[in-house]
Amino acid sequence: MGEKLTPRSQDYSKWYNELVVKANLAESSSVRGCMVIKPYGYAIWEKMQAELDKMFKATGHENAYFPLFVPKSLFEAEEKNAEGFAKECAIVTHYRLKNDEDNPGKLKVDPEAKLEEELVVRPTSEAIIWRTYKNWIQSYRDLPILVNQWANVVRWEMRTRLFLRTAEFLWQEGHTAHATKDEAIMEAKQMNDVYADFAEKFMAMPVIKGLKSESERFAGALETYCIEALMQDGKALQAGTSHFLGQNFAKAFDVKFANKEGKLDYVWATSWGVSTRLMGALVMTHSDDNGLVLPPNLAPIQVVIVPIYKGEEELNNISIVANKIKNELESNGTSVKYDNRNNFKPGYKFNEYELKGVPLRIAIGPKDMENNSVEIARRDTLTKSKIGMNEVVKEVENILIDIQESLYSRALVHRNDNITMVHSFKEFKSVLENKGGFISAHWDGSVETENLIKKKTKATIRCIPNKNKLEKGFCVYSGRPSNQRVLFAKAY
Amino acid sequence: MGEKLTPRSQDYSKWYNELVVKANLAESSSVRGCMVIKPYGYAIWEKMQAELDKMFKATGHENAYFPLFVPKSLFEAEEKNAEGFAKECAIVTHYRLKNDEDNPGKLKVDPEAKLEEELVVRPTSEAIIWRTYKNWIQSYRDLPILVNQWANVVRWEMRTRLFLRTAEFLWQEGHTAHATKDEAIMEAKQMNDVYADFAEKFMAMPVIKGLKSESERFAGALETYCIEALMQDGKALQAGTSHFLGQNFAKAFDVKFANKEGKLDYVWATSWGVSTRLMGALVMTHSDDNGLVLPPNLAPIQVVIVPIYKGEEELNNISIVANKIKNELESNGTSVKYDNRNNFKPGYKFNEYELKGVPLRIAIGPKDMENNSVEIARRDTLTKSKIGMNEVVKEVENILIDIQESLYSRALVHRNDNITMVHSFKEFKSVLENKGGFISAHWDGSVETENLIKKKTKATIRCIPNKNKLEKGFCVYSGRPSNQRVLFAKAY
Repeated sequence: MGEKLTPRSQDYSKWYNELVVKANLAESSSVRGCMVIKPYGYAIWEKMQAELDKMFKATGHENAYFPLFVPKSLFEAEEKNAEGFAKECAIVTHYRLKNDEDNPGKLKVDPEAKLEEELVVRPTSEAIIWRTYKNWIQSYRDLPILVNQWANVVRWEMRTRLFLRTAEFLWQEGHTAHATKDEAIMEAKQMNDVYADFAEKFMAMPVIKGLKSESERFAGALETYCIEALMQDGKALQAGTSHFLGQNFAKAFDVKFANKEGKLDYVWATSWGVSTRLMGALVMTHSDDNGLVLPPNLAPIQVVIVPIYKGEEELNNISIVANKIKNELESNGTSVKYDNRNNFKPGYKFNEYELKGVPLRIAIGPKDMENNSVEIARRDTLTKSKIGMNEVVKEVENILIDIQESLYSRALVHRNDNITMVHSFKEFKSVLENKGGFISAHWDGSVETENLIKKKTKATIRCIPNKNKLEKGFCVYSGRPSNQRVLFAKAY
Repeated sequence: MGEKLTPRSQDYSKWYNELVVKANLAESSSVRGCMVIKPYGYAIWEKMQAELDKMFKATGHENAYFPLFVPKSLFEAEEKNAEGFAKECAIVTHYRLKNDEDNPGKLKVDPEAKLEEELVVRPTSEAIIWRTYKNWIQSYRDLPILVNQWANVVRWEMRTRLFLRTAEFLWQEGHTAHATKDEAIMEAKQMNDVYADFAEKFMAMPVIKGLKSESERFAGALETYCIEALMQDGKALQAGTSHFLGQNFAKAFDVKFANKEGKLDYVWATSWGVSTRLMGALVMTHSDDNGLVLPPNLAPIQVVIVPIYKGEEELNNISIVANKIKNELESNGTSVKYDNRNNFKPGYKFNEYELKGVPLRIAIGPKDMENNSVEIARRDTLTKSKIGMNEVVKEVENILIDIQESLYSRALVHRNDNITMVHSFKEFKSVLENKGGFISAHWDGSVETENLIKKKTKATIRCIPNKNKLEKGFCVYSGRPSNQRVLFAKAY
């Protein structure tokens, strides 16, 4: 446990790094830019995976697994995609080490074991998957293909941060193939909706669904749909993306199908993914200066029971009650930990579970035993209350639901309070500087303007929201006519 | 679907390869030695994962995730382990591609983006994990650490076969740290028992639990426990291993802990793993010339219902009954597919589900509707019977249990019939040549003899079975005294 976290108000970035490490979510490894996801962090990721996987299967998708490596010739086949990832990929060139004669006990790369063709460690799998789909697709009867993969990918980022940007990360990538353009677009939109549902219902994180501008699109996509969230410090975070890839990959890998009339056409594609980055988003949406705050729907431990006692007899009496409560809650599907460790004081335990974000804590002491009550503490509000022992099970379930909803509402209020409409570039800069958050501003639609704004302010277009209101106006930067406002922000 | 499989009696190896591809389990990819695990194959792997994961958690283990890459200096730290894997590992040397000026549109490795230290793509994770544990362990209070990882690993095998030996494969690797030698040995044995339970209860595959001889041990282990299975063609398959690593990795990475008396000592270690190789074992334990045979406990589809009809009205009537049966079975936890596809004939569907190993098929035709009966076909015995509609749910559940048990019994009889006790090297060679299977023979305990036998016959010591009977005898090869028989076999 050790000392307290740096307060968020003092240094948000430092607070984040400390929290991720101290709450046992993840830590840096001895491999540059790669993290170790620790058991407690991984348990949260497993809950995310389980829920997402259910949602993917409910929408007709199946899981499969494709190779980690992409031969260079496949990697470069779709030029835009290759260009987007070429500068940050790990490349395997040899397949053997041998003894280093100059350094006994050490090894060196065996120059005789050089690969004929270099292998790229996948930064994303469109290339290897579309090369595979070529053999799977002959006619419209083979379509659609609705496949998802849970995997690790590698992007050689220069500046890394735990969960938010790491050289290796875990993700899922859906890759679908369709007979028509409309069907592919519907699929891409549907999966963006699935991501939004997951973010809101499980992470209690409000998101804005929208479309990326051209320069923020995935390399090789015709359209990128996304969900954008707002962190506590006023920076945006892209939480998931879903791409309509058109026929780009089908053309690069010559994947054609015969339609019902026997005519050949290229196949239409989508791909979509979320990653361990969501862990960072979860932390920065709800947590506070005492540590992690977890929404009950993703908490590995939803309720912890801590006995307060002197001597073995008191502990034994409390344990009978505690285990009864635990069993009843668990039989209703609530995950409960009874922490009867002898070598730690209650205060230490309280701090530990606060740091770890356990949504609800129940304390039972001798006074409670006399009064037939327990003390309940909510992690989200840090408030305590006494309730009768007979009401515990029902009350706990209600409070967990309330915590889930309250976290969402609180985040939604924060998010909505931090969307600011601006009318000039001066105002744009001032809001960005002093308030942060999303800035809703007119934009002339050109890549050039977007780049200039980015260069001057570090803000980017996060998205053009779905169902955006069309309204005449003038671009805050160029003054040229504009049809709609878009959302700008500084982003993770 | 297409043509029939090559019969097992004609060419077992060809039969296996054809079956794996045609039943949609896996296929070769365009990356040398790497496979694509197709959705149906992956669904079986997911079931294996889910059951194993439950068993790991029930024995107190948590999941975590460690980096894909191992810096060369860590890789070489435990010398025996390094020596064991150095000759077959993929090595990342660069982190960027750039445009190839000589070939427009093509990319080449950027020589300026050479890594200072090469990274080995993990063939196994002891090195990176023990480097991490160094920071996690100070005192006995930090022990034991009971961690498992689900991951991909890469071993640059020269001769590969789908599932059985691939350059990249999926697996789980447990890595535990303990305060005492005894505790570590108990853990290694416990996890080997878990593997045996899984193999027998879920895969319906009998296994022999035992200890590896020195030359078959994991590189860096003091003892390797294993489960060995026998395939239909008389070759053995190592299905899982669990290693007692002693203090080798703790010493290589300087991981010490303070015991209760404050004295420093090196930490004791185990590691244990099973992989997608189990998929190959599953295929070669039960399947036949018609295709895959799956034990119900691992079948993604346990029951398929096929309607036999002419015209829409007949189909509608059958569908009412079929959906009722489906719902009732599903509410009891049985996974059911109702295949009412219009563009395929019943005979085609029958063949397809036979090929895919669905344990039980229900056919419902107009005659059945009249007689209030259905036709049930078992995949394991290829037998059919009629049962009354009202008994379907109860009967199906009983038959699924019976199939699971029968598959195990059949495999057990085959396995037991193929353990042959021999008394001379002549007999050894003759049995190996004409019958195959496990050969129980006296061995003098020397690596030299083991190597000579391997050289002359290709048979290796598969294991020294647990609870092996001690009996005086003479080594079949050297004639030197021996205390026990061990099991030899040719192996996958």
